Amino acid sequence: GENRRSLPFAGVSTLLGAPFRPEAPDLPDFGGLQVALVGVPTDLGVTNRSGSRFGPRAVRAVERVGPFNHALRVTPLAERRAADIGDVPFRGRFSLEDNIADIAGFYARLAAAGVVPLSVGGDHSITGPILGALGRDRPVGLVHIDAHCDTSGPQEGTRFHHGGPFRQAVLEGVLDPARTIQIGIRGSAEMLYEFSYVSGMTVIHAEDVDTMGIDAVAAKAREVVGDQPFYISFDVDGLDPAFCPGTGTPEVGGLTPREAQRILRALVGLRVIGGDVVEVAPQYDPTTVTAQVAAQMLFEMFSLVALAP
Amino acid sequence: GENRRSLPFAGVSTLLGAPFRPEAPDLPDFGGLQVALVGVPTDLGVTNRSGSRFGPRAVRAVERVGPFNHALRVTPLAERRAADIGDVPFRGRFSLEDNIADIAGFYARLAAAGVVPLSVGGDHSITGPILGALGRDRPVGLVHIDAHCDTSGPQEGTRFHHGGPFRQAVLEGVLDPARTIQIGIRGSAEMLYEFSYVSGMTVIHAEDVDTMGIDAVAAKAREVVGDQPFYISFDVDGLDPAFCPGTGTPEVGGLTPREAQRILRALVGLRVIGGDVVEVAPQYDPTTVTAQVAAQMLFEMFSLVALAP
Amino acid sequence: GENRRSLPFAGVSTLLGAPFRPEAPDLPDFGGLQVALVGVPTDLGVTNRSGSRFGPRAVRAVERVGPFNHALRVTPLAERRAADIGDVPFRGRFSLEDNIADIAGFYARLAAAGVVPLSVGGDHSITGPILGALGRDRPVGLVHIDAHCDTSGPQEGTRFHHGGPFRQAVLEGVLDPARTIQIGIRGSAEMLYEFSYVSGMTVIHAEDVDTMGIDAVAAKAREVVGDQPFYISFDVDGLDPAFCPGTGTPEVGGLTPREAQRILRALVGLRVIGGDVVEVAPQYDPTTVTAQVAAQMLFEMFSLVALAP
Amino acid sequence: GENRRSLPFAGVSTLLGAPFRPEAPDLPDFGGLQVALVGVPTDLGVTNRSGSRFGPRAVRAVERVGPFNHALRVTPLAERRAADIGDVPFRGRFSLEDNIADIAGFYARLAAAGVVPLSVGGDHSITGPILGALGRDRPVGLVHIDAHCDTSGPQEGTRFHHGGPFRQAVLEGVLDPARTIQIGIRGSAEMLYEFSYVSGMTVIHAEDVDTMGIDAVAAKAREVVGDQPFYISFDVDGLDPAFCPGTGTPEVGGLTPREAQRILRALVGLRVIGGDVVEVAPQYDPTTVTAQVAAQMLFEMFSLVALAP
Amino acid sequence: GENRRSLPFAGVSTLLGAPFRPEAPDLPDFGGLQVALVGVPTDLGVTNRSGSRFGPRAVRAVERVGPFNHALRVTPLAERRAADIGDVPFRGRFSLEDNIADIAGFYARLAAAGVVPLSVGGDHSITGPILGALGRDRPVGLVHIDAHCDTSGPQEGTRFHHGGPFRQAVLEGVLDPARTIQIGIRGSAEMLYEFSYVSGMTVIHAEDVDTMGIDAVAAKAREVVGDQPFYISFDVDGLDPAFCPGTGTPEVGGLTPREAQRILRALVGLRVIGGDVVEVAPQYDPTTVTAQVAAQMLFEMFSLVALAP
Amino acid sequence: GENRRSLPFAGVSTLLGAPFRPEAPDLPDFGGLQVALVGVPTDLGVTNRSGSRFGPRAVRAVERVGPFNHALRVTPLAERRAADIGDVPFRGRFSLEDNIADIAGFYARLAAAGVVPLSVGGDHSITGPILGALGRDRPVGLVHIDAHCDTSGPQEGTRFHHGGPFRQAVLEGVLDPARTIQIGIRGSAEMLYEFSYVSGMTVIHAEDVDTMGIDAVAAKAREVVGDQPFYISFDVDGLDPAFCPGTGTPEVGGLTPREAQRILRALVGLRVIGGDVVEVAPQYDPTTVTAQVAAQMLFEMFSLVALAP
Repeated sequence: GENRRSLPFAGVSTLLGAPFRPEAPDLPDFGGLQVALVGVPTDLGVTNRSGSRFGPRAVRAVERVGPFNHALRVTPLAERRAADIGDVPFRGRFSLEDNIADIAGFYARLAAAGVVPLSVGGDHSITGPILGALGRDRPVGLVHIDAHCDTSGPQEGTRFHHGGPFRQAVLEGVLDPARTIQIGIRGSAEMLYEFSYVSGMTVIHAEDVDTMGIDAVAAKAREVVGDQPFYISFDVDGLDPAFCPGTGTPEVGGLTPREAQRILRALVGLRVIGGDVVEVAPQYDPTTVTAQVAAQMLFEMFSLVALAP
Repeated sequence: GENRRSLPFAGVSTLLGAPFRPEAPDLPDFGGLQVALVGVPTDLGVTNRSGSRFGPRAVRAVERVGPFNHALRVTPLAERRAADIGDVPFRGRFSLEDNIADIAGFYARLAAAGVVPLSVGGDHSITGPILGALGRDRPVGLVHIDAHCDTSGPQEGTRFHHGGPFRQAVLEGVLDPARTIQIGIRGSAEMLYEFSYVSGMTVIHAEDVDTMGIDAVAAKAREVVGDQPFYISFDVDGLDPAFCPGTGTPEVGGLTPREAQRILRALVGLRVIGGDVVEVAPQYDPTTVTAQVAAQMLFEMFSLVALAP
Repeated sequence: GENRRSLPFAGVSTLLGAPFRPEAPDLPDFGGLQVALVGVPTDLGVTNRSGSRFGPRAVRAVERVGPFNHALRVTPLAERRAADIGDVPFRGRFSLEDNIADIAGFYARLAAAGVVPLSVGGDHSITGPILGALGRDRPVGLVHIDAHCDTSGPQEGTRFHHGGPFRQAVLEGVLDPARTIQIGIRGSAEMLYEFSYVSGMTVIHAEDVDTMGIDAVAAKAREVVGDQPFYISFDVDGLDPAFCPGTGTPEVGGLTPREAQRILRALVGLRVIGGDVVEVAPQYDPTTVTAQVAAQMLFEMFSLVALAP
Repeated sequence: GENRRSLPFAGVSTLLGAPFRPEAPDLPDFGGLQVALVGVPTDLGVTNRSGSRFGPRAVRAVERVGPFNHALRVTPLAERRAADIGDVPFRGRFSLEDNIADIAGFYARLAAAGVVPLSVGGDHSITGPILGALGRDRPVGLVHIDAHCDTSGPQEGTRFHHGGPFRQAVLEGVLDPARTIQIGIRGSAEMLYEFSYVSGMTVIHAEDVDTMGIDAVAAKAREVVGDQPFYISFDVDGLDPAFCPGTGTPEVGGLTPREAQRILRALVGLRVIGGDVVEVAPQYDPTTVTAQVAAQMLFEMFSLVALAP
Repeated sequence: GENRRSLPFAGVSTLLGAPFRPEAPDLPDFGGLQVALVGVPTDLGVTNRSGSRFGPRAVRAVERVGPFNHALRVTPLAERRAADIGDVPFRGRFSLEDNIADIAGFYARLAAAGVVPLSVGGDHSITGPILGALGRDRPVGLVHIDAHCDTSGPQEGTRFHHGGPFRQAVLEGVLDPARTIQIGIRGSAEMLYEFSYVSGMTVIHAEDVDTMGIDAVAAKAREVVGDQPFYISFDVDGLDPAFCPGTGTPEVGGLTPREAQRILRALVGLRVIGGDVVEVAPQYDPTTVTAQVAAQMLFEMFSLVALAP
Repeated sequence: GENRRSLPFAGVSTLLGAPFRPEAPDLPDFGGLQVALVGVPTDLGVTNRSGSRFGPRAVRAVERVGPFNHALRVTPLAERRAADIGDVPFRGRFSLEDNIADIAGFYARLAAAGVVPLSVGGDHSITGPILGALGRDRPVGLVHIDAHCDTSGPQEGTRFHHGGPFRQAVLEGVLDPARTIQIGIRGSAEMLYEFSYVSGMTVIHAEDVDTMGIDAVAAKAREVVGDQPFYISFDVDGLDPAFCPGTGTPEVGGLTPREAQRILRALVGLRVIGGDVVEVAPQYDPTTVTAQVAAQMLFEMFSLVALAP
């Protein structure tokens, strides 16, 4: 069976072509994995277009990403014991709060086992409970690429919607706002993001990229997170809709994939402890370009993990 | 301004091209309307593909349906004071239970005002509270076109999901199972529909249409609902996916639109008191055929209302 | 992990939601399986549009088919030890002849182990070597739904293209033409199909369905295959392009899915020994209706296998 | 160069794969052609969705139709000297009236040369001037498949829009209403079609097909046109939108391609003198099924021409 | 009803989410509006792909743009009395000249009432009569983003086609070429644009953006229009087709949305008196990215209007 | 007939709108042509998504490219006797080796006749035999835009797959590695490209474009090929998938069309002797942007040819 998966169009596809280990979550230490690729298929937190519940499946269907990252010169699957361990098991489809709780429980176990999680959403509400698990012992830093700061308050009866996970994380003490940078911000919800400024996050708007230059932005990201543990959260709507049409709240005027790659690659050698790619809604992605970008960014994160100290 | 809306591609589009009266819900008697065309944009009850929250918008965007129904020889907008009164106002986007309660309240007011509601979902969970409002005084009959009986029990902590509204309606005493016919049933969830049989509903499977002939099915529908008030609920997945790809739980082997029209038109002269078309998910409908069928079926229902005794 | 796969949009999807057993082919008796669901991702035999190499992946991605067949009243996964065993391993992507040889070898092992194969192509060239394996000991019967007879001779230097597998099978003595029925035939290549008539196959053109009625066609199929072992080969282009746009050689004027289901279901209780669904090209299937139909027909075949004597 | 066009995906595609003779219109007798396949790329007469100016190009792009018609047992290209002679040359893109005049002039020359025209629109306005040319000497009969009668009067300042060509043709004395049958009629514009009834046309609504049966409809068509010369005009919106989404004024509840083929094939042996397929708008046809149906129906017409007395 | 429109997927959508005031055109002063958002649904002036008659509807369907412009720090709907007043009423669908006259009349009334128009086309022919109305008293300046100069002469019998409005406007004395800048020019029609150079317009080709840098281009635009009244016309084909596939005459190698935003935002504080976004053809825009960009650019213009002296 | 082709949506479309001369290959000197536009419809060499066999047809269908190149100020069709001579005739569809041999033979004749070939693939395997023909007398230089170096060795039994043509060309002595530059390289197959480095090619990765600047890259290209004859091979996957979704092995993070144009245009005045655009797979290109870019790049090459010494 060695050769069975060698054709990109053949077989059952997994995240980044990693081995499929759906039984790992049932083992005490996740079977000794160092890195877990995880799907988190829920979109109950969206405020506009639903659909990202199919995000993990769409990213799995990407035929060719990796194994070698020529820019960072690393083959992450060769450097870490990693697997696609399937999706977070949810007790149901109808309650945002229950989904959040299920994610929290699952990642608490991953964190306890010391497994680095690389996740595919799902909407951005999933990052709240993930940070809750990873930052339990000490608040983490964050590189956050997105069109939106996602630091708004409770809305329509819940604090778990996809527009607020980073506020929640700060309030819970699991995210350090001073070590948080948000890049690509734009659109019309600026008034909802006061918390970012008040709490001390560094906010880089999309138009700042034009004035600063992308390498200065990348350098700023390195500076903000420093040499302490940090997380990467990549909302595909940080990119321009031409590159990522398949998402729930697109915003014109975003980053290019090359700019995003420059930022991520600049983080090499720093202490990344996990990451996610969220808000892939394949119903709006007839060419699959969004899923491709998401898979590529996940691969860049995995490369950083493989090279982290 | 008389001619302003005469081009089908111009202007702001409404359900069936009816006048737009968004202020009507704020008037005590809905401004004297006899028929209200209503959008119910929620998809929190779906079990598979989300997206029908955009159903009302998709059906509004259909350019040409009506005004004349040549088969029934009626121009319903000329026979009834009717308007598109906009969408049910929801208090939020994140709670299925809250959405159900909001629908219940809205339709209670419509029922109290004696306005006949013709609704566009949203997923099938919306029909539960609508029947609750219309059947408050006496249980109603039902012609139900669908691939699924939607009579399953509570699931994952809620009884309001889109697979159970008709069970709920019977249990609440607002739907008369003896005067309920379900047509087009197929797929793999038969074991969930025991309630339909136990409660005494008439179930016509898709393959029964082949053996009975569509006109016998239509005659059966007339017989079941009889001369008492009844409701029509049209889930577009009752049709074959070729005619209705844009839906959340498609099932191969369904009705054709012509068969569905024969059933609906056979109900002319009976006491229809409302109806809905549900489960239009335009993200899966690149040709807009699903929205077109949904609009046409809504128009057939409106024609029946205009000709009801 | 019991509940992990309960959401149709979650997890790694397999053919008909069967357990995934990619290691089975490496076990002597395929791990004791009675039925193997197999992908055969090759399209080197097509004469027009390529793309069906992605057919197995597309059918796997269908979210909901089965587990219960209400028309035949069977839950095939509960009746047979069955699994998705992945795809036929190919030595390469560039040689039609090599692909054919690899299929032949793989199915010879399945046949030797007594495992009933249910396959998803790939183009129709795959059926030749499958029949070669299943008919080795005695020629089998065939119910063949297709727009084309696929009994033409060698073309452009090969006899393995997708227009000729049934001629080959007869010439190799593995297919009994007297017990072969081809249903749905139409299009412009009639002159290539003389072999069907000469060898004694029963050919039912698409327009014959109108004159005979579908139930007479189904009865004819039962009669032709009789009570001896037979195979089912379902080319999705047997259906009309409205139902199956995602295929390589579409032909206007085909069967409906309901007609196809009537034919297949009429075969209940007969000795089906395997089957395939071929020519799904998802690049031409933006609504996924083709993949859905293919999955449903595969499920109907599986149901027949579960009920075969 | 004999083999150059043998691959369906290769080369420059023409209508029905006929030889390309763009110079023919410049020759006195169209180079001795008996049948001319002609594109008429204009959509200035549409009332809703524009786009059928690309209809000829879309039908040319269909890879495989013909050469053999197995149902009628004829290879029309072998029976008649025929060619794709390109498109009607228009003096411009901005004037409906000029387009109509250019078509009139072009077909007058074809008629004078005794060449049978088989045309691809463009919108239905093109049929008016074509009938004007073919019926100059004596009014012709007509088999008209369409959702709309297209017999309405002048609208918004012109009598040449796509909703009125058959009224015009009767008023000009080139079409015999008593020998005209319109099949598939439905939708909401019945009040515009009084002229059909008043002038004595036979109108078969879509729902009549269900009550009469398709073979009775076909027999009626034979009876209406009789043994005198007649024309066939096929608006793809006569079919249900599932089969023909790519059109400008779709109407739910139409014919199936198999029904349309039965009608056309029943006309074999009668004196067809030309035909057209109109209203193909490929912008709304992501699967190309509409173009495929259009090409097939054009091929059926060509077969009838080859077998006409 | 205050909250009724708070969900982006609910209700009847309007341009930029502005109040819908279809009755305003019937009031003497347009009901006291300062800014009118207007649809102009005509595509009779196109030279290639038709379809932009659906442009206004597509831009209205965009779910989320505004209300706050964080880069310019303004909420235009709060600064100006503005409404979506529906579409220009056309007397018909078949005459380009009549459409032009209807636009001219409508905008003359807007101009007389001192209402600033922000329009959505339709093809670029609409800008001619708009400039005619706005420039009646003194020629206006122009910032024109486009792939084409649109200064060619009469063609095929009309001077109103979409390739010539700016030539017309200069010849009519309503546009000041010395205060006109055209940005993003490319493609193959350069020989048609001599008038731009002869009349003294400033032409910035797409490749000039690379050599000058976008900020220099923006500065040049400020300089050209100066402190006198000017208009903004944004043809979406000024952007690269990846960002704007849904348009009638796409040209490879265009601007990015970020570049366009930089140009527009640089005009803040200058005397903009109106603007339009044209050539959105949603039939070619399966991901809706074109409509999104168009809505965003309209919003940028509205922001400039709100901040104009 | 002079005006017959003046409407971009009319008539039979050819590569760059050039005259169609399918008989030219049958003439001894190709009818005196200086430049031949040729389709090469084969995709048997692909390793992932098939479909580029339809590439030539897709590029022909592009409505508007040329005739004038304003940046280079040339009308190439006016400067050179050029025609679309149709597609390379293949003896069959099933053998990669045969296709390669057919291409080799065809281009040998073109080379012998001194006709400059500009080709549209097909997959990148076609460039091997083209270089074989053009470089027979002396090895040529190469400007190669691509995501992949395509210098890998034999795979799965063949050396003719689309990942290796440039290795083959060097080994055959028809390509001079010292005068070869590969631009846009990225993705995960770097380990397969050792031959590029070993043989002395200049490799510019996608991220090098960010650090060098595009004009330095262009200057490097000029320097590498120098003043001797060179070929241009443009794989559309050199561009980012947002600009070119319709291709078989997309790679995130590629060039923009403007960058590619800058590189190509910088080659003006150098001795280009042919070129190709490959890997257009229209099945993955619902907006046709990929075909448009391909046509534009072909036009840029033709412009260079027209201006070559």
